[in-house]
Amino acid sequence: MKIYVFGLREDEIEPLNQWKAANTDVDVEYTADILTEDTANLAKGADGVVALQTQPYSRKALEIIHDLGISKFSVRNVGLDGFNFKDLNDFGFTLTYVPVYSPNAIAEHASFLVGRLLRRVPEFDKKFQSGNFKWFPTIGTEISGKTVGVIGTGHIGSVFARIMKFGYGANVIAYDIDPNPALENLGIYVDTLDELLEKSDIISIHTPLAPKDHHMLDANAIAKMKNGVYLINCARGGLLDNQALIDGLDSGKIAGAGLDVLENENGIFQNEFDSIEAVDDEVFQNLAHRDNVIITPHTAFYTERAVHNMIFDSMNDNKAMISGKKAKNIVDTHK
Amino acid sequence: MKIYVFGLREDEIEPLNQWKAANTDVDVEYTADILTEDTANLAKGADGVVALQTQPYSRKALEIIHDLGISKFSVRNVGLDGFNFKDLNDFGFTLTYVPVYSPNAIAEHASFLVGRLLRRVPEFDKKFQSGNFKWFPTIGTEISGKTVGVIGTGHIGSVFARIMKFGYGANVIAYDIDPNPALENLGIYVDTLDELLEKSDIISIHTPLAPKDHHMLDANAIAKMKNGVYLINCARGGLLDNQALIDGLDSGKIAGAGLDVLENENGIFQNEFDSIEAVDDEVFQNLAHRDNVIITPHTAFYTERAVHNMIFDSMNDNKAMISGKKAKNIVDTHK
Repeated sequence: MKIYVFGLREDEIEPLNQWKAANTDVDVEYTADILTEDTANLAKGADGVVALQTQPYSRKALEIIHDLGISKFSVRNVGLDGFNFKDLNDFGFTLTYVPVYSPNAIAEHASFLVGRLLRRVPEFDKKFQSGNFKWFPTIGTEISGKTVGVIGTGHIGSVFARIMKFGYGANVIAYDIDPNPALENLGIYVDTLDELLEKSDIISIHTPLAPKDHHMLDANAIAKMKNGVYLINCARGGLLDNQALIDGLDSGKIAGAGLDVLENENGIFQNEFDSIEAVDDEVFQNLAHRDNVIITPHTAFYTERAVHNMIFDSMNDNKAMISGKKAKNIVDTHK
Repeated sequence: MKIYVFGLREDEIEPLNQWKAANTDVDVEYTADILTEDTANLAKGADGVVALQTQPYSRKALEIIHDLGISKFSVRNVGLDGFNFKDLNDFGFTLTYVPVYSPNAIAEHASFLVGRLLRRVPEFDKKFQSGNFKWFPTIGTEISGKTVGVIGTGHIGSVFARIMKFGYGANVIAYDIDPNPALENLGIYVDTLDELLEKSDIISIHTPLAPKDHHMLDANAIAKMKNGVYLINCARGGLLDNQALIDGLDSGKIAGAGLDVLENENGIFQNEFDSIEAVDDEVFQNLAHRDNVIITPHTAFYTERAVHNMIFDSMNDNKAMISGKKAKNIVDTHK
């Protein structure tokens, strides 16, 4: 049995070698190149392919893979935007994905963003870099005793809630249309989003971006929040209305924001510019220069454990499909 | 009854006003000036004085306070280096101090230093500032699943241990000559410091600096640690041998360090220079330019809660002494 891996990054080599060592019955070959019509033939002789790329998967590339007799296709990530499902169906592919890499990676990152905001790290960093080693007047606040509102309590939100409550001793409240049974006994759920917005000193959002949730946190929602609220978004940019965020920061209603995602991050994040100033995006320019805004370019997920899981879960599913066994995370490409 | 407060900073005004509102039987006056022979007469008419300053309390200033008929003296901090106890005794002062401001402030700060190191924030910050918004290859690691060694489990270390264990799901081990009964049921104590050094992925030290503990973490101790260990010191600089730290960073034995204290911080921290380069200290220059070292200039304690407690505990004790009641934190100036 042979699996061919496209687009393998350097940091994925070690976990892939670990997977190979645990699966000596599988022949694994790989390339750093992504899957295109120019590279597709590298998979010749393989029974399945595993890929990861931000560029679209072209119909021609998929056709070549199909013509090589391969129908088992696994991606190492959650995003499926690069596929035209019709192409996959036309060529008879079965597709698996990795819906969850590491909830801890994102929840921990969100908690560190809270810490960096409450302790005014960007201001302290600037002072330090300029040779000013005085603590006054850059006073911080503590998580302990604060009311932390968690919107969405799935894999990630529930880990974040536990970090805040059991680690830092925050008063955690949560809102979810579909409360997580594992958290019900904590008594943290409030009945409405409004109640969470009104009571929280710190709000962190951990929901998917369903169409109805576009701009869930808009000017109207922000108006209901406490003065001096801190906002954390490590979920999806579209959940938070950029202009409402900027207005809230300008008025002081919002004391600070930690953003791992931006509604307009495509074309900015995962790119390299000559300088921050070279980014042609008004919202980004507005936010990137504020001392009370921390932007991390969609890095929250990026830990060794997450990469390990992306490799192992995708390889396991690809092997399962080839072996005629049940794969864990098959994508329904027909719906 | 009247209390005179010296050296009041702007950020102390609000908590002092809160204390006054809760103690309307006390007349409180204050100055931003510290207590010197030039300012001591401001306390005329007061029954007690409350002070906080890094400069020494001169014998002459204390004599003037004494001549004003004042014998109740309270400082708002823990450090007593500025006093010559003989002066205090000669003039018949009773002195109180504030031994603990906010354990959470320091424990939370230590946890954020862990996060900033594991997620390689200094490297990401540099990338961001240069216009590079790619996550690869700056991969992070998670606290969850790591073994975190806590040396010293008093007020601060025990809060830090709880954050790591119950918040982040780390495997916490602890060492203390005098284990904290409140933590005994957690089963986290190891029998020897060596065992902690050998097993920990992350080590955070939270002990006072007793003379015998000078350079507790020296080259010998570091040699026993795991390769790639992370060190956190928010306690006292003298606990960690600077040269051994630098050697460990150079060799890669130590993967990173978060330092809120430095053995040679006097003359650097709480001062302002024209630039980092203007600091005439070889150790500081060596450490300050490393991407895997985060130095915070003794800021861990500095939160609103800590300042509130410094005001309230010192004022309460001063009032208690004036009222002939038992003060909570009297310093034995005769030992």
